[in-house]
Amino acid sequence: MPQTPIDPARLTADLVRCASVTPEEGGALQLLERVLSEAGFSCTRVDRNGIANLFARWGARGAARSFGFNGHTDVVPTGDASVWSVPPFGAVEKNGWLYGRGATDMKSGVAAFVAAAVDFVTATPPDGAVILTITGDEEGDAVDGTIAILDWMRAQGETMTACLVGEPTCPEHLGEMIKIGRRGSLSAWFTLTGVQGHSAYPHRARNPLPAMARLMDRLASHRLDEGTAHFDPSTLAVVTIDTGNPATNVIPAQCRATVNIRFNDAHDSAGLINWMQDELDCVAGEYGITGEMSVKVSGESFLTPPGPLSDLVARAVEAETGITPALSTTGGTSDARFVKDICPVVEFGLVGQTMHQVDERVEITQIHQLKAIYARILRDYFA
Amino acid sequence: MPQTPIDPARLTADLVRCASVTPEEGGALQLLERVLSEAGFSCTRVDRNGIANLFARWGARGAARSFGFNGHTDVVPTGDASVWSVPPFGAVEKNGWLYGRGATDMKSGVAAFVAAAVDFVTATPPDGAVILTITGDEEGDAVDGTIAILDWMRAQGETMTACLVGEPTCPEHLGEMIKIGRRGSLSAWFTLTGVQGHSAYPHRARNPLPAMARLMDRLASHRLDEGTAHFDPSTLAVVTIDTGNPATNVIPAQCRATVNIRFNDAHDSAGLINWMQDELDCVAGEYGITGEMSVKVSGESFLTPPGPLSDLVARAVEAETGITPALSTTGGTSDARFVKDICPVVEFGLVGQTMHQVDERVEITQIHQLKAIYARILRDYFA
Ligand SMILES: [Zn+2]
Ligand SMILES: [Zn+2]
Repeated sequence: MPQTPIDPARLTADLVRCASVTPEEGGALQLLERVLSEAGFSCTRVDRNGIANLFARWGARGAARSFGFNGHTDVVPTGDASVWSVPPFGAVEKNGWLYGRGATDMKSGVAAFVAAAVDFVTATPPDGAVILTITGDEEGDAVDGTIAILDWMRAQGETMTACLVGEPTCPEHLGEMIKIGRRGSLSAWFTLTGVQGHSAYPHRARNPLPAMARLMDRLASHRLDEGTAHFDPSTLAVVTIDTGNPATNVIPAQCRATVNIRFNDAHDSAGLINWMQDELDCVAGEYGITGEMSVKVSGESFLTPPGPLSDLVARAVEAETGITPALSTTGGTSDARFVKDICPVVEFGLVGQTMHQVDERVEITQIHQLKAIYARILRDYFA
Repeated sequence: MPQTPIDPARLTADLVRCASVTPEEGGALQLLERVLSEAGFSCTRVDRNGIANLFARWGARGAARSFGFNGHTDVVPTGDASVWSVPPFGAVEKNGWLYGRGATDMKSGVAAFVAAAVDFVTATPPDGAVILTITGDEEGDAVDGTIAILDWMRAQGETMTACLVGEPTCPEHLGEMIKIGRRGSLSAWFTLTGVQGHSAYPHRARNPLPAMARLMDRLASHRLDEGTAHFDPSTLAVVTIDTGNPATNVIPAQCRATVNIRFNDAHDSAGLINWMQDELDCVAGEYGITGEMSVKVSGESFLTPPGPLSDLVARAVEAETGITPALSTTGGTSDARFVKDICPVVEFGLVGQTMHQVDERVEITQIHQLKAIYARILRDYFA
């Protein structure tokens, strides 16, 4: 039997010492599997294409009530380690802070929900299941991480009836913000091809550049929407336009550009792709050139409308911190975009200010507070 | 005393053997100075900044009638000489053609007017002066070539009352085309600078790319004019737009673009620069970014309206070839854009099809025809 209660700060430090830069497992999931197995969790490594993932369940498969936590142990690279004031994987403590890559994003979050879950099932075994899905591929392409676990769960008949993703969600103070949705994201690469020629004889060439300027102007100046009930307006950013022609007397044959769209629940990627293809065809026809577009969809938008799950989490946050959290849909993407296909999902975690930065760090008292919040969520969910 | 008549084909071959790639003199002007001096021309080398130029006058300085020829002996590089079917500076003759770099552009033209001028002043000394201005800097920046000779002429009180530039002007058949003007040319380099940011938060950044797209669209879609009496419409070509941002989640801080304008006599460079600056200021203000523009003017447009000089040249062409030449203003720039500040100037020369190409070559009979045309122009001018 494991020693309880588990110290989530000590577990965070142990995880930080595992150099688990994507796609390296670094010992992090092995450590968690040991801790969870000792506490009676049934653990399965769901590795795919060289990526390590961990599925852990306490309670019966397919239980009517099964609360899940989702998180990741992989971290972004340290960059130049000599710029850090501490060794990035040293888990050094200074003045009440724990330093290291992953200290906020999100080994502390994983440690907090693992500690909360172990204590909870040990002290007050619930009528239902507690599910932990922990991936080693969130900071990378995210194609063999949470998706792989969810694929495996579907095949095995594993379920969750609600899920909380433990990513950092608070801008400045612990308790400020719960994420109940995220915008979708997609990128599109455009290539316009005309006919090269001499600048003195533009009528003998077909210059793709005026067409590209027109296309990018149209895409960038189109207002996608005015925002929706829970989302800011969708945005389109032109991120690069490139030709690489050094000669002022030459009209180039080709030009490329890339745009990135962050879209709310007024859109899906298919509709946006159709819209861009129509604009491309229209401009290409107008200028007599050929246009090609390739697209990568990072994720659709998702929303878990305010309701029982967000209420439950908000009450727990308020009880432990005294702060009423805002329900937000801002920010980039997270693995909640995959979990939402299985069950209602929200996100709540620490202050994310130093994530991905040099001297990433977490206030140790906040790790304990986060564990307390997660523990209260479990108690209330199964009450 | 020189041997006359001079064989212009042999003189062309001698000049081709001088490897006078800009800025190398290669012995070409030394050869011409020798030939012209022997014929009684007063020769002066007007070198500037390492560029060799030759001024030659037969007759009195400041004569009331002084007919000038202008040309260049410098040539563009050969490129990969192994791709040529002959040595590029070998002046090989095959099937009635003379091969070599400069064979059409324009050592044959120079040889033809030197031969015509020497024969003319020797056989029928005119009441006036014959002026030859021959530069070694036409294919390069052209800042120390014909301009240097004209500067020197002004300082010395040297004059020309009419001038013919011997560049290739005929598209396919000798006699087809006289150039009575040329469009001007300028290039403008734009740099738009905003504020870098994350694609997910475009409102915190200031993206210069939509502004660049708008600016280039405005410039490219503006119709500068409908053409004028003797000119095609002016054109603006966007030749490059570049950012160099590989990250789809980053909004870049800066973008650059270059345009090239070929403009007719409805414009001057100052007016076009003002127009572009206004458009730039307008777009930069609209998008809240900063814009910078730098400009290089290669030459203003010029026109020698149809009149005595073009009539004289056209009659000579028709008499020698049986073809009525068109009076045109098409094509790129030439040193006529400088000469026009001194006196009326037109351009007439050989078929330019192989100029600047591999296996550049000239039909030998056409060199003789060109000499005959130039000789008739001199006779008629001084008649
Ligand atoms: Zn994260
Ligand atoms: Zn030339």
